[in-house]
Amino acid sequence: MIKTDILIIGAGPTGLFAVFEAGLLKLKCHLIDALPQPGGQLAELYPKKPIYDIPGFPEVLAGELVDNLMKQIEPFQPGFTLGERAETIEKQEDGSFIVTSTSGLKHQASVVAIAGGLGSFEPRKPLIPNIQQFEEKGVAYFIRNPEVFRNKKVIIAGGGDSALDWSIFLSEVASEVTLVHRRNEFRGALDSVEKVQELKKLGKITLITPAEVVGLRGNEHLDAVVIQKADKSEETLETDYFIPLFGLSPKLGPIADWGLEIEKNAIKVNNSLDYQTNIPGIYAIGDVNTYPGKLKLILCGFHEATLMCQSAYQRIFPDKRYVMKYTTVGGVHGFDGSKKEAPKAVVKSID
Amino acid sequence: MIKTDILIIGAGPTGLFAVFEAGLLKLKCHLIDALPQPGGQLAELYPKKPIYDIPGFPEVLAGELVDNLMKQIEPFQPGFTLGERAETIEKQEDGSFIVTSTSGLKHQASVVAIAGGLGSFEPRKPLIPNIQQFEEKGVAYFIRNPEVFRNKKVIIAGGGDSALDWSIFLSEVASEVTLVHRRNEFRGALDSVEKVQELKKLGKITLITPAEVVGLRGNEHLDAVVIQKADKSEETLETDYFIPLFGLSPKLGPIADWGLEIEKNAIKVNNSLDYQTNIPGIYAIGDVNTYPGKLKLILCGFHEATLMCQSAYQRIFPDKRYVMKYTTVGGVHGFDGSKKEAPKAVVKSID
Ligand SMILES: Cc1cc2nc3c(=O)[nH]c(=O)nc-3n(C[C@H](O)[C@H](O)[C@H](O)COP(=O)(O)OP(=O)(O)OC[C@H]3O[C@@H](n4cnc5c(N)ncnc54)[C@H](O)[C@@H]3O)c2cc1C
Ligand SMILES: Cc1cc2nc3c(=O)[nH]c(=O)nc-3n(C[C@H](O)[C@H](O)[C@H](O)COP(=O)(O)OP(=O)(O)OC[C@H]3O[C@@H](n4cnc5c(N)ncnc54)[C@H](O)[C@@H]3O)c2cc1C
Repeated sequence: MIKTDILIIGAGPTGLFAVFEAGLLKLKCHLIDALPQPGGQLAELYPKKPIYDIPGFPEVLAGELVDNLMKQIEPFQPGFTLGERAETIEKQEDGSFIVTSTSGLKHQASVVAIAGGLGSFEPRKPLIPNIQQFEEKGVAYFIRNPEVFRNKKVIIAGGGDSALDWSIFLSEVASEVTLVHRRNEFRGALDSVEKVQELKKLGKITLITPAEVVGLRGNEHLDAVVIQKADKSEETLETDYFIPLFGLSPKLGPIADWGLEIEKNAIKVNNSLDYQTNIPGIYAIGDVNTYPGKLKLILCGFHEATLMCQSAYQRIFPDKRYVMKYTTVGGVHGFDGSKKEAPKAVVKSID
Repeated sequence: MIKTDILIIGAGPTGLFAVFEAGLLKLKCHLIDALPQPGGQLAELYPKKPIYDIPGFPEVLAGELVDNLMKQIEPFQPGFTLGERAETIEKQEDGSFIVTSTSGLKHQASVVAIAGGLGSFEPRKPLIPNIQQFEEKGVAYFIRNPEVFRNKKVIIAGGGDSALDWSIFLSEVASEVTLVHRRNEFRGALDSVEKVQELKKLGKITLITPAEVVGLRGNEHLDAVVIQKADKSEETLETDYFIPLFGLSPKLGPIADWGLEIEKNAIKVNNSLDYQTNIPGIYAIGDVNTYPGKLKLILCGFHEATLMCQSAYQRIFPDKRYVMKYTTVGGVHGFDGSKKEAPKAVVKSID
């Protein structure tokens, strides 16, 4: 059982920044995310694209912003349960909550902050009859640890940035990389398309287009895939891994059944105070919430996370009165003993 | 008469970022600030100090943040009335407002956003009987344009960072710099104190401590100041300029009489929607407003500015329906013809 002060569901920018604001209040956080890495939409959907409306950044790559946030919250040592979905929530007699994630792992906290964005990112799975049987046994929808593929034969399917970029990356790791796509045209960043073209010429990536993976073979573990060409002819290809990268679609998922007021696929909150939901102790911040005038913007999630933390503090310490100190004045005191502080003024005579 | 879409009172971080959000909606802004430079508290009170709680910046100097914001809003060409206070507001028959600043300059806009922070920064003036007579005639509380002091004799009074830093700066510009302080000890950044020490040794700054300026002499323009030492002896010193730098104190000032609901020296707003005040068309954002749970933080001002702009758009174009586009997707189209856009994906076959 993991115990923490604030359990945050969703490690997108909103959830990440909440760790920082909680840390300033000396509250510890743990985050659960269905994705294998933190960053939410920014890390998963557009890591290499620029964002122009983060205050103070005339331009910042989405992936860079996530890196910066990770660095900013480092002193507050957040815990992470990655690659798992938050499935159920139970309220305890002492007012705390227990949230259980996919693997059965339990997380206990006085406050739960749902920062689930558009929902838990679920892979779009190809319609291959027996695919479920090979999940975690040769079929992977995410690449959690690329080392798994070292010196293995890998078949990737897809025609977008993920398929291109992982083909490029794994061409250095796997013994063979084959990229299968149902069209001849790929859609992605120009340099990714060009790099794949180059690696194909060098014989480091094999391309099969237009074609589709229509069958999977194997006993315990995947051994081969069946590929169908445009002319309906089929070919069986030996492989260790099949990685279909057809995009992710976010689904509010089990959270929709937690008894929270839902409106337009988002969680209603009290925006005139603290972004709390209809269940006291459960907050919803960032893209996942809705209120009159709501904008699904990163900078709004930051503000909501900050006000949420103040309210959470009151809930956790009903008898303490928190006096806010500017970070410039009070500094940042990490849970790891680290300390950031503005250089102090000196009082000194000049002679 | 200056005409604009949104007139912003206060060019602190909140007012500056509002220009950006308004620009995305194709609304033009003009800012009025009592200070000679944009940046509000950050530029005036702690430009060289680090801030740790701006999302995405593990650490950023206040002055740097202001520079970044100025760069971010550049494409939207804001107008500035600097060094003037917004004094009066009048509502016109067409629903627009006219705001008049200290010099009598009139500014007309459909929407007024007060981003006045803790108030208009007013210099703390020393208690010298005839000081008012010499204001703008040798007595300066702000340094707007350092070139004014080129090859002139300057006497600075004060013992803090401003007095130290301007003494250092003007030692390269003025023909003579004399620094007068009522104590022997100065209070400021270590390197500033040490630099003044060094310039004193080199004869580039004359120090008179402990002492106070108690009188001013001159006809049309200031000619000399009277300095009183600790032993009450007096000395008259010829000078072209006297610059008392005793800090600034913010005063809500004339805005307090505009008919807005005020609570605890701040303007009450509707935080459950758009940060509008009790007078439709007048908004209050950033440190200057108050609502349940309000935090006087920079990041909160950014959020408030953003929601305010959406509401202002509705007020200005009641018949148009604005569809928000992410900057990553839609880019930033400056009023100066500039264009920032994410590199487009290509659709390309690989052979
Ligand atoms: C192409 C594109 C461009 C964009 N451009 C901009 C822009 O320029 N400016 C801007 O401000 N915004 C932009 N956005 C929107 C911005 O990305 C979102 O506002 C932001 O990601 C919201 O952050 P969040 O932390 O609230 O949620 P998200 O980033 O969506 O993160 C939520 C996380 O929660 C996880 N999660 C949800 N439910 C569960 C569960 N039950 N269990 C475990 N994990 C769960 C998800 O897997 C996800 O990782 C853009 C979005 C896209 C797609
Ligand atoms: C030492 C110090 C450290 C701080 N550290 C932090 C920190 O770490 N993090 C954080 O988030 N915040 C911090 N703050 C607070 C932060 O500076 C404020 O929240 C921020 O400046 C508010 O921005 P604003 O734009 O709303 O107002 P301000 O920055 O106060 O700007 C308002 C401007 O409006 C002008 N104005 C007001 N009335 C009029 C008028 N009638 N006519 C013309 N001009 C007018 C003023 O001259 C001023 O320039 C700190 C403050 C101080 C003093």
